[in-house]
Amino acid sequence: MMEILFDETFTPRDQAKVDIEDRGYQFGDGIYEVIRVYGGKMFCLEPHLQRLQRSTSEIRLQLPYSLERLKQLLQELVQNNHLTDGNVYLQVSRGTAPRNHKFPENTRPMVVAYTMEAPRPVKMLDEGIHTITDPDIRWLRCDIKSLNLLGAVMSKQKAADRGCEEAILHRDGRVTEGSSTNVFLVKDGTLITHPADHLILHGITRQVVLELAAELNWPVEERAASIEELFRADEVFITSTTTEVTPVISIDGRTVSDGKPGPMTRRLQKAFAERIGVGSLQK
Amino acid sequence: MMEILFDETFTPRDQAKVDIEDRGYQFGDGIYEVIRVYGGKMFCLEPHLQRLQRSTSEIRLQLPYSLERLKQLLQELVQNNHLTDGNVYLQVSRGTAPRNHKFPENTRPMVVAYTMEAPRPVKMLDEGIHTITDPDIRWLRCDIKSLNLLGAVMSKQKAADRGCEEAILHRDGRVTEGSSTNVFLVKDGTLITHPADHLILHGITRQVVLELAAELNWPVEERAASIEELFRADEVFITSTTTEVTPVISIDGRTVSDGKPGPMTRRLQKAFAERIGVGSLQK
Repeated sequence: MMEILFDETFTPRDQAKVDIEDRGYQFGDGIYEVIRVYGGKMFCLEPHLQRLQRSTSEIRLQLPYSLERLKQLLQELVQNNHLTDGNVYLQVSRGTAPRNHKFPENTRPMVVAYTMEAPRPVKMLDEGIHTITDPDIRWLRCDIKSLNLLGAVMSKQKAADRGCEEAILHRDGRVTEGSSTNVFLVKDGTLITHPADHLILHGITRQVVLELAAELNWPVEERAASIEELFRADEVFITSTTTEVTPVISIDGRTVSDGKPGPMTRRLQKAFAERIGVGSLQK
Repeated sequence: MMEILFDETFTPRDQAKVDIEDRGYQFGDGIYEVIRVYGGKMFCLEPHLQRLQRSTSEIRLQLPYSLERLKQLLQELVQNNHLTDGNVYLQVSRGTAPRNHKFPENTRPMVVAYTMEAPRPVKMLDEGIHTITDPDIRWLRCDIKSLNLLGAVMSKQKAADRGCEEAILHRDGRVTEGSSTNVFLVKDGTLITHPADHLILHGITRQVVLELAAELNWPVEERAASIEELFRADEVFITSTTTEVTPVISIDGRTVSDGKPGPMTRRLQKAFAERIGVGSLQK
């Protein structure tokens, strides 16, 4: 049976239960990471751990042990579960205490991590996805990767209701990000994506794409594009740990350019595949 | 040992554990209510159940059984635990399913409820509380009583750090509500409180206070007051299920009027005590 990292020990999956007064359950008082595993190795583990530490620091949550120890435990988890291709889900809540909004004292935060097998989403990567636009009603600290995900859940479901894979969010007429992804536009050879401020999650894959664009000597503008620019873009793609670089081929039923993944998106997919150490989409 | 309502059955407290893939734990995908118990009876039970139903409906969550059945189970819970004065905490999550933002199919929502003994907060009611102001960074559906409470938690803790009991939130220069309470101002004999729109929780105690004000023939304005009006108010008080009608005697270190609970606040406290069937603050 699959093992779960539960605090600092490994537990069989069916015994991984948390108290009803775990603050993760009552307040969403905690943070998380999803880490991709390719060929048995966690991809971009260091940036994920750094972001985890930043999230915990922003909500003033102290990890129960060092990042180094956590890293070691995650590596053991991947090995114990014989995970080759898939994801590690990791969350840390502020722990269990009698319900009260204020931070509890002397409460040990709760670490939970488990693995999921998952092939790369080759069909989506190859064909692209359909999307909708939706108002961004989330809180103003989307840079914290917190467990308060109901807004994202509602937007994602709205997309699913319309047969689409993602909702592209906009606030005050400006594109922020997807419900669980970052959004990039291509216009006249320039990459445009929202700056990594408090309105978006600072995606690890977003950062990799910015590095790849720099290597390719492509111009990049980190700014909030308007909805109008989104609809007039030459290419649009989303990025995330699980979706990598996924072309967007339609938005609200309107095709992006000719409705096929564009050349710069394809070039980035190739560069990304090289970065993760696979030769093509069809790994 | 205390019993917990767990789905549709009663479970000893120490056995009330939820799965790590309960969507309440991973997404805050659920809603809750806190119901006051006075003299063994749940106060305003019907409005709480109506609000619960509205919250579930807004996030498209179907209760696993009828409201009538839930009401009966909550009454049994209060009796089984011999609760005289305290609170019932009730939450409903979308249930357990493999992690994915989209709603799961055929997943039974998870009902959890338990009781807490708690005397009325007579010292606070008598003396009033100190508060701070804090930017309202929460999402734009605060009318849904959801488990996404991290913004409220952060504001409440900020108040606690400064030796205060509550944070009064403001968005775009306008007072919305407290981190876990509604806020009322009194100016020249008029009660002012934020309209029950998407920016605030539609408090049951807020509604009771509006009814009491109507009985007293007091003028009421449901509008978003400015921060300047807050600081110039004759009286300020907060309301919630657990804090009832609590005077605010200072904001950001500045006293409200002469720093003592005002006459209209006192009059409302008296009317509220009559409504809940106790004679005075010192019950």
